[in-house]
Amino acid sequence: AGDPEAGKSKSGMCVACHGTDGNSLAPMYPNLAGQHAQYLETAIKAYRDGQRTGGTAPMMIPMAANLSDQDAADLAAYFSQQKLKQK
Amino acid sequence: AGDPEAGKSKSGMCVACHGTDGNSLAPMYPNLAGQHAQYLETAIKAYRDGQRTGGTAPMMIPMAANLSDQDAADLAAYFSQQKLKQK
Repeated sequence: AGDPEAGKSKSGMCVACHGTDGNSLAPMYPNLAGQHAQYLETAIKAYRDGQRTGGTAPMMIPMAANLSDQDAADLAAYFSQQKLKQK
Repeated sequence: AGDPEAGKSKSGMCVACHGTDGNSLAPMYPNLAGQHAQYLETAIKAYRDGQRTGGTAPMMIPMAANLSDQDAADLAAYFSQQKLKQK
Protein backbone atom coordinates (compact mmCIF):
# COMPACT_ATOMS: atom_id res chain seq x y z
CA ALA A 1 0.00 0.00 0.00
CA GLY A 2 1.01 3.62 -0.43
CA ASP A 3 2.43 5.83 2.30
CA PRO A 4 0.91 9.34 2.15
CA GLU A 5 3.80 10.92 4.04
CA ALA A 6 6.31 9.43 1.61
CA GLY A 7 4.00 10.54 -1.20
CA LYS A 8 4.03 14.10 0.06
CA SER A 9 7.83 14.11 0.09
CA LYS A 10 7.86 12.86 -3.54
CA SER A 11 5.18 15.28 -4.81
CA GLY A 12 7.45 18.22 -5.59
CA MET A 13 7.35 17.64 -9.33
CA CYS A 14 3.56 17.27 -9.33
CA VAL A 15 2.51 20.49 -7.66
CA ALA A 16 3.18 22.93 -10.48
CA CYS A 17 0.18 21.47 -12.36
CA HIS A 18 -1.81 19.54 -9.76
CA GLY A 19 -1.36 21.95 -6.83
CA THR A 20 0.24 21.12 -3.47
CA ASP A 21 -3.13 19.79 -2.31
CA GLY A 22 -4.30 18.10 -5.50
CA ASN A 23 -6.59 20.96 -6.52
CA SER A 24 -5.15 21.56 -9.96
CA LEU A 25 -4.12 24.99 -11.18
CA ALA A 26 -5.71 24.79 -14.65
CA PRO A 27 -8.74 22.97 -16.10
CA MET A 28 -6.61 20.87 -18.45
CA TYR A 29 -4.89 19.26 -15.46
CA PRO A 30 -7.04 16.87 -13.43
CA ASN A 31 -7.80 17.43 -9.79
CA LEU A 32 -6.22 14.61 -7.79
CA ALA A 33 -7.72 15.52 -4.39
CA GLY A 34 -10.42 13.06 -3.33
CA GLN A 35 -9.74 10.74 -6.27
CA HIS A 36 -9.49 6.99 -5.58
CA ALA A 37 -5.89 6.00 -4.73
CA GLN A 38 -6.23 2.79 -6.78
CA TYR A 39 -7.24 4.77 -9.86
CA LEU A 40 -4.48 7.35 -9.39
CA GLU A 41 -1.89 4.59 -9.04
CA THR A 42 -3.16 2.93 -12.23
CA ALA A 43 -3.08 6.22 -14.14
CA ILE A 44 0.49 7.08 -13.04
CA LYS A 45 1.70 3.65 -14.18
CA ALA A 46 -0.21 3.95 -17.47
CA TYR A 47 1.65 7.18 -18.25
CA ARG A 48 4.95 5.62 -17.16
CA ASP A 49 4.41 2.47 -19.23
CA GLY A 50 3.48 4.26 -22.45
CA GLN A 51 -0.23 3.37 -22.27
CA ARG A 52 -1.47 6.94 -22.47
CA THR A 53 -0.62 9.29 -25.29
CA GLY A 54 -3.62 11.63 -25.69
CA GLY A 55 -4.28 15.13 -24.33
CA THR A 56 -1.65 16.33 -21.85
CA ALA A 57 0.08 12.93 -21.80
CA PRO A 58 3.19 14.39 -23.44
CA MET A 59 3.68 16.53 -20.31
CA MET A 60 2.84 13.74 -17.87
CA ILE A 61 4.95 10.95 -19.41
CA PRO A 62 8.36 12.43 -18.45
CA MET A 63 7.05 13.09 -14.93
CA ALA A 64 6.11 9.45 -14.47
CA ALA A 65 9.03 7.95 -16.40
CA ASN A 66 11.30 7.28 -13.43
CA LEU A 67 8.71 6.47 -10.79
CA SER A 68 8.77 3.07 -9.11
CA ASP A 69 5.57 1.16 -8.30
CA GLN A 70 6.05 2.25 -4.66
CA ASP A 71 6.43 5.90 -5.72
CA ALA A 72 3.15 5.63 -7.65
CA ALA A 73 1.39 4.07 -4.65
CA ASP A 74 2.77 6.70 -2.25
CA LEU A 75 1.83 9.65 -4.50
CA ALA A 76 -1.63 8.16 -5.05
CA ALA A 77 -2.11 7.70 -1.31
CA TYR A 78 -1.06 11.28 -0.60
CA PHE A 79 -3.22 13.03 -3.20
CA SER A 80 -6.28 10.83 -2.66
CA GLN A 81 -6.37 11.93 0.97
CA GLN A 82 -6.45 15.63 0.12
CA LYS A 83 -9.71 17.60 0.21
CA LEU A 84 -11.21 18.73 -3.10
CA LYS A 85 -12.28 22.36 -3.01
CA GLN A 86 -15.71 22.61 -4.59
CA LYS A 87 -17.59 25.77 -5.59
CA ALA B 1 -19.29 24.13 -24.72
CA GLY B 2 -20.98 21.18 -23.04
CA ASP B 3 -24.62 21.13 -21.96
CA PRO B 4 -24.99 19.46 -18.53
CA GLU B 5 -28.67 18.63 -19.09
CA ALA B 6 -27.86 16.92 -22.37
CA GLY B 7 -24.97 15.21 -20.60
CA LYS B 8 -27.25 13.87 -17.93
CA SER B 9 -29.53 12.38 -20.58
CA LYS B 10 -26.51 10.66 -22.20
CA SER B 11 -24.98 9.37 -18.96
CA GLY B 12 -26.96 6.13 -18.73
CA MET B 13 -24.04 3.97 -19.82
CA CYS B 14 -21.62 5.68 -17.40
CA VAL B 15 -23.46 5.27 -14.13
CA ALA B 16 -22.84 1.57 -13.53
CA CYS B 17 -19.16 2.36 -12.82
CA HIS B 18 -19.05 6.12 -12.19
CA GLY B 19 -22.32 6.44 -10.24
CA THR B 20 -25.29 8.60 -11.22
CA ASP B 21 -23.58 11.55 -9.52
CA GLY B 22 -19.99 10.88 -10.55
CA ASN B 23 -19.05 9.34 -7.19
CA SER B 24 -17.71 6.05 -8.51
CA LEU B 25 -18.81 2.69 -7.17
CA ALA B 26 -15.37 1.08 -6.92
CA PRO B 27 -11.85 2.41 -6.34
CA MET B 28 -10.62 1.27 -9.75
CA TYR B 29 -13.12 3.63 -11.44
CA PRO B 30 -12.33 7.33 -11.13
CA ASN B 31 -14.65 9.76 -9.43
CA LEU B 32 -15.88 12.25 -12.03
CA ALA B 33 -17.73 14.57 -9.64
CA GLY B 34 -15.90 17.88 -9.21
CA GLN B 35 -13.34 17.05 -11.88
CA HIS B 36 -12.48 19.74 -14.47
CA ALA B 37 -14.80 19.51 -17.48
CA GLN B 38 -11.92 20.24 -19.87
CA TYR B 39 -9.92 17.31 -18.46
CA LEU B 40 -12.91 14.94 -18.54
CA GLU B 41 -13.61 15.86 -22.17
CA THR B 42 -9.95 15.23 -23.07
CA ALA B 43 -9.97 11.87 -21.29
CA ILE B 44 -13.19 10.67 -22.98
CA LYS B 45 -11.76 11.54 -26.40
CA ALA B 46 -8.43 9.86 -25.56
CA TYR B 47 -10.27 6.61 -24.82
CA ARG B 48 -12.38 7.03 -27.98
CA ASP B 49 -9.37 7.77 -30.17
CA GLY B 50 -7.26 4.84 -28.97
CA GLN B 51 -4.84 6.96 -26.95
CA ARG B 52 -5.38 5.13 -23.69
CA THR B 53 -4.80 1.42 -23.27
CA GLY B 54 -3.68 0.86 -19.66
CA GLY B 55 -5.62 -0.11 -16.53
CA THR B 56 -9.39 -0.20 -17.04
CA ALA B 57 -9.11 1.26 -20.56
CA PRO B 58 -10.40 -1.99 -22.11
CA MET B 59 -13.71 -1.36 -20.32
CA MET B 60 -13.84 2.35 -21.11
CA ILE B 61 -12.91 2.20 -24.81
CA PRO B 62 -16.18 0.60 -25.99
CA MET B 63 -18.13 3.08 -23.87
CA ALA B 64 -16.47 6.02 -25.60
CA ALA B 65 -16.25 4.48 -29.08
CA ASN B 66 -19.42 6.03 -30.50
CA LEU B 67 -19.42 9.36 -28.69
CA SER B 68 -19.28 12.57 -30.68
CA ASP B 69 -17.21 15.55 -29.57
CA GLN B 70 -20.46 17.18 -28.41
CA ASP B 71 -21.38 14.05 -26.41
CA ALA B 72 -17.99 14.18 -24.70
CA ALA B 73 -18.43 17.89 -23.90
CA ASP B 74 -21.97 17.35 -22.56
CA LEU B 75 -20.99 14.37 -20.37
CA ALA B 76 -17.97 16.28 -19.08
CA ALA B 77 -20.12 19.30 -18.24
CA TYR B 78 -22.65 17.16 -16.40
CA PHE B 79 -20.25 15.16 -14.26
CA SER B 80 -17.93 18.08 -13.49
CA GLN B 81 -20.86 19.92 -11.91
CA GLN B 82 -21.67 17.06 -9.51
CA LYS B 83 -20.59 17.20 -5.87
CA LEU B 84 -17.81 14.86 -4.75
CA LYS B 85 -18.67 13.09 -1.50
CA GLN B 86 -15.63 13.21 0.74
CA LYS B 87 -15.08 11.34 3.99
